[in-house]
Amino acid sequence: MALLNDDRLFPAEETTRAIARRLYDEIRGLPIVSPHGHTQAGWFARNQPFPDPVALFVQPDHYVFRMLYSQGISLEELEIGRPTINNPRKVWRLFASHYHLFRGTPTRLWLDYAFQESFGLTERLSEATADHYYDVIEAKLATPDFLPRALYERFKIEVMTTTDSALDSLADHTAIRESGWKGRILPTFRPDSVVDPEFPNFLENVGSLGALTGEDTSTWRGYLRALQSRRAAFKALGATASDHGHPTALTEDLGDTSAASLFEQVINGKAYAADLEIFRGQMLTEMARMSVEDGLVMQIHPGSVRNHNAQIFARYGCDMGADIPQATGYVEQLRPMLNRFGNEKK
Amino acid sequence: MALLNDDRLFPAEETTRAIARRLYDEIRGLPIVSPHGHTQAGWFARNQPFPDPVALFVQPDHYVFRMLYSQGISLEELEIGRPTINNPRKVWRLFASHYHLFRGTPTRLWLDYAFQESFGLTERLSEATADHYYDVIEAKLATPDFLPRALYERFKIEVMTTTDSALDSLADHTAIRESGWKGRILPTFRPDSVVDPEFPNFLENVGSLGALTGEDTSTWRGYLRALQSRRAAFKALGATASDHGHPTALTEDLGDTSAASLFEQVINGKAYAADLEIFRGQMLTEMARMSVEDGLVMQIHPGSVRNHNAQIFARYGCDMGADIPQATGYVEQLRPMLNRFGNEKK
Amino acid sequence: MALLNDDRLFPAEETTRAIARRLYDEIRGLPIVSPHGHTQAGWFARNQPFPDPVALFVQPDHYVFRMLYSQGISLEELEIGRPTINNPRKVWRLFASHYHLFRGTPTRLWLDYAFQESFGLTERLSEATADHYYDVIEAKLATPDFLPRALYERFKIEVMTTTDSALDSLADHTAIRESGWKGRILPTFRPDSVVDPEFPNFLENVGSLGALTGEDTSTWRGYLRALQSRRAAFKALGATASDHGHPTALTEDLGDTSAASLFEQVINGKAYAADLEIFRGQMLTEMARMSVEDGLVMQIHPGSVRNHNAQIFARYGCDMGADIPQATGYVEQLRPMLNRFGNEKK
Repeated sequence: MALLNDDRLFPAEETTRAIARRLYDEIRGLPIVSPHGHTQAGWFARNQPFPDPVALFVQPDHYVFRMLYSQGISLEELEIGRPTINNPRKVWRLFASHYHLFRGTPTRLWLDYAFQESFGLTERLSEATADHYYDVIEAKLATPDFLPRALYERFKIEVMTTTDSALDSLADHTAIRESGWKGRILPTFRPDSVVDPEFPNFLENVGSLGALTGEDTSTWRGYLRALQSRRAAFKALGATASDHGHPTALTEDLGDTSAASLFEQVINGKAYAADLEIFRGQMLTEMARMSVEDGLVMQIHPGSVRNHNAQIFARYGCDMGADIPQATGYVEQLRPMLNRFGNEKK
Repeated sequence: MALLNDDRLFPAEETTRAIARRLYDEIRGLPIVSPHGHTQAGWFARNQPFPDPVALFVQPDHYVFRMLYSQGISLEELEIGRPTINNPRKVWRLFASHYHLFRGTPTRLWLDYAFQESFGLTERLSEATADHYYDVIEAKLATPDFLPRALYERFKIEVMTTTDSALDSLADHTAIRESGWKGRILPTFRPDSVVDPEFPNFLENVGSLGALTGEDTSTWRGYLRALQSRRAAFKALGATASDHGHPTALTEDLGDTSAASLFEQVINGKAYAADLEIFRGQMLTEMARMSVEDGLVMQIHPGSVRNHNAQIFARYGCDMGADIPQATGYVEQLRPMLNRFGNEKK
Repeated sequence: MALLNDDRLFPAEETTRAIARRLYDEIRGLPIVSPHGHTQAGWFARNQPFPDPVALFVQPDHYVFRMLYSQGISLEELEIGRPTINNPRKVWRLFASHYHLFRGTPTRLWLDYAFQESFGLTERLSEATADHYYDVIEAKLATPDFLPRALYERFKIEVMTTTDSALDSLADHTAIRESGWKGRILPTFRPDSVVDPEFPNFLENVGSLGALTGEDTSTWRGYLRALQSRRAAFKALGATASDHGHPTALTEDLGDTSAASLFEQVINGKAYAADLEIFRGQMLTEMARMSVEDGLVMQIHPGSVRNHNAQIFARYGCDMGADIPQATGYVEQLRPMLNRFGNEKK
């Protein structure tokens, strides 16, 4: 018995399936270049074992616990948001006995792949197999083959990037570099917390940005220099891109005087909601300008409405499975930025 | 010759077709649970024969006459909106001679199914077969096998719900219960006419709601109690759900004082169009609250622009084939209601 | 070797492919009726040879040069926008050496079809085959078989329409008629330049409309008569349709007094942006009214955001590959016009 069908992601129809197999056979052995790896540099800096199956598969994956929550299982029962998990086996059994909920989801495709390919499991996860899974996974996680760096090598990763706040000290990335390990883990510059005035603790974050860079971020000039300085620090550790999660794709191209004046309003808490959106739009154009200068590839992923569930947000904070995609426009929204920099050959 | 191909709704590709057939064979014999049956309780209460093919297939189906109208056949010719049909055979011939217009539509799939499976007809409806169809259908409708209750049983229906105005006396549902017949026809609570201030005769409807329940619906408290009372009456006759047709999915969560004050403006005709939309949004949240209390499942189907053709509406009224679906948002729109009740386990 | 696979536009799955082939075999020999031909009447009026491969395939096709521009090739290198091309062979080689960029695009489907079917070429266009292509195409273009009228006949065209400004004298169409040639090239009435106040040189255009028709287009009545007069001139040369490229599908149905007053504001430059959109909407309804009267079929294609790239627009003008489709609504937008004329049997 196997958890996976070799053709599971291919078309059912034989002609196109044969083409899909042929194409896949050509590339399946290639090394992985992962530009948005959803991993943390600290894993590779410290290279410690993952503690248990729950800490690896349930706690950090909001797709998993959001599904369970939708069926009435409380986040308390799943011990989400706790510094340490009191009873990981109990949480695992709860997850396992609801695994049928994931039928037909990308989450199960992904989990079954990991269970079979990395852990050698061949019977479906269920209430009946919960303890067997727990024991096998826990035992393997304790072996050297399952340390983060060993997994990186086993998976034939050539390069993988993390996503890091503009305020991150990049200490983990520095540690990886200095460790002599050959794996390439590169940071990606994510400045949402210091360019979006509606980000939690925005003003405090802008202050921290000043402290980190030695710039006076209470002025427009100093603020821009601080951002450039952080981008340079990221680039020095191998960053090739920036990443911007905005509510919409709106960009603006205010003149420098207006932009400076808007920044002053924002920083003094005197801007209206509409102005905050304009400020975010202006900052995308500023980021584009810096990208033309320093060569970091600019990635925008707008349209996520974040923290949709007020109760979950109040109790557990950001990124707890309460983000919902929303339609957003690009044609008029990107126009100001593209008219400023879209014809640049660089 | 047959009107239907057994595989007509399955994929053309053999592998997936075989899977579809296998799945269908497993479930095709199961009884039907129809949660939105597009039927009337009166049919089953009175159990009278359907009078003729036109009264069964043309008059009540706005998909049929809207298609004919789009090709220049007037609703007068089709005798739409008349209490009795003067010349049903003439209308049937008109319909039959335009049946080619329905090629490739769900309407034809559905009609051909009824023609073949219920009436044993095997040649396509056309000008040439019009009279044959008319005679066969008319004759069968007069037999006991084609009375509404007999059809309910022949189709192996386990339960079917109607959709009923909050102002409906539910006399037909009561009559079914009292008749001793074993068929399960349940009402669904549809309060659009008393919660949407732009519904025709809204103020009069709210008055009738008061008369029906003995509550003073000129006050917010009395109005809410009247709605609760109607919901209880529906539930007592087996209702398991409410159904809400709003122009958009907007919900609101005003405080109780603001809601009461908005109700007063609305009921006194002093609210602006934007306020009317806010009132509808507030009422969805009130309905959600009552659902948490009484357990009726809440169904929202927003986004229909109704009575788009002013000329048809002026002459024939609502539900005459002039409704058009329109894009509507859900992410921000449902947020107020979900933040109020979305984490309820009930 | 062939550039084209006979099944290239058919489904991969054998059952549906066989049906597609059968349907296509039934209709592939039929003459072509081309209601939106993207050609110019002048080609057929003058019947001169196309000068060279670049003037035929690169210069007039913004899908071609926009793709090349997106990969960093400047419009200068491609000699776009020049009255004569200095070095067409050099431009052709540049195009040929980037032909791989068109893999999987409709542009390549179309070009390969022309290369193989009209010019007998069988090796893919590339840097290596660039000169061979250039020589073959150039030589054939100089022969009588490749004159516009000969191609019209070879392609078995029964009728083809051009799209012409309301201000076009239609001299080319008149010349075709008077030449005795049997080909049917019909004009289509496109009034954007005189009904959209944001069209470049709108006021000047309305003046030209007056001059062309002998009407006083500074008054609402005279302006409408002038448009009717142009429609009649188009119809006299065989036009069967009008064509309207508006930013949105908005229509309006102002009373005649309000419409006249809005026209006065627009013509005196005293209207706000929102009013300009309302004026365009009113003009769609006026065009619908004239269509009911003169029988020209009205075609609306809204939703193109034009001249998105300000730099390209400033240097090269309209229609240079910088138009982007945008979502637009139809349900509420078309309602005023449909409620005015949508029930007309004509």
